[in-house]
Amino acid sequence: MQEKGLLLVLSGPSGAGKGTISLALQKENPSLRLSVSATTRQPRKDEVDGLHYHFLKKEVFKNLINNDQLLEWAEVYGNYYGTLRRFVQESLEQGDDVMLEIDIQGALQVRQNFPDAVLIFIAPPSKSELRSRLISRDTDSKEEIEKRLGCAISEMELARQYDFIVINDDISKALEKVRAVITVEKLRPRYHELFFMQFKQ
Amino acid sequence: MQEKGLLLVLSGPSGAGKGTISLALQKENPSLRLSVSATTRQPRKDEVDGLHYHFLKKEVFKNLINNDQLLEWAEVYGNYYGTLRRFVQESLEQGDDVMLEIDIQGALQVRQNFPDAVLIFIAPPSKSELRSRLISRDTDSKEEIEKRLGCAISEMELARQYDFIVINDDISKALEKVRAVITVEKLRPRYHELFFMQFKQ
Repeated sequence: MQEKGLLLVLSGPSGAGKGTISLALQKENPSLRLSVSATTRQPRKDEVDGLHYHFLKKEVFKNLINNDQLLEWAEVYGNYYGTLRRFVQESLEQGDDVMLEIDIQGALQVRQNFPDAVLIFIAPPSKSELRSRLISRDTDSKEEIEKRLGCAISEMELARQYDFIVINDDISKALEKVRAVITVEKLRPRYHELFFMQFKQ
Repeated sequence: MQEKGLLLVLSGPSGAGKGTISLALQKENPSLRLSVSATTRQPRKDEVDGLHYHFLKKEVFKNLINNDQLLEWAEVYGNYYGTLRRFVQESLEQGDDVMLEIDIQGALQVRQNFPDAVLIFIAPPSKSELRSRLISRDTDSKEEIEKRLGCAISEMELARQYDFIVINDDISKALEKVRAVITVEKLRPRYHELFFMQFKQ
């Protein structure tokens, strides 16, 4: 009997550092399978199909939506983004743990489909620190930064719907906390079917 | 605004080692308040009133029951045992974490009263190891050991109703897991009210 894997969902406002945490987790834990999102947007230079995204045509993506083959999806500025249900479902059935690094709306959609999913909200330590991080990225205009900041702040309220909040003031401490979540979730009764069986014999 | 404390409930069949774990947790974490149970049984030699138990007269205990002043209670071989609601409630309100080390039926009663309580089931690693531990205690007759073993095995099924199962095959590893549970429970949104407030200003 194979115990099902754990579905871990990392999300948070931009600038919170979920990308860094997700990357570090994958490196230290190769058995944690990262779901690659599907998108209809054009690949940027250096982006590899199947690694960074599954780059799909709009018709293909809409077909996936219509056939309920996406765990979550959204349209952002005319492009579609989503998570392939099949990859996640099959990995979990095989007993593999799966990690999704997706946006907040997507995470809350996943919860509907997988009530056992564990949602971690990666949060910036403060408003001022979030602003500094967005500025230091230096990719956005001032207006864009203020827009993102406003958006991030309003998204903070949604953190209440998550299982856990990891404040990312120090990357190694934040990682420690995410690791602890994985350890603790594995202590749930549903991961102990084999253990219970030996007491029945 | 004071964030409420965490109510941690440790239980498990006799021989699982919950006493050892509870003692170690208290030592390393003096701010974790251990609730002292009330009982109507006679104190054994070396047992100190208010430290090992609150030793109460039967009428006093029955009054506590009638006035809903016990979080959980049970009658075992003519003696009453229970947890004082007031101590637990006041400690939690003050923001202190509280630990209960109680039997399995009691733990499930606490869950009714405190849905936020975190229930940890300390489990023996196997049936044979449980038998050895009960034998090595050397305080019980063979019959008593078999009775306890049968009881422990049937209690294992109740572990499914707990939040977490900690298999105690190695005390330091088991302790590590209980520590991780405390760390992770503190990541819940309800412990972040002050944090949320700074994003609203």
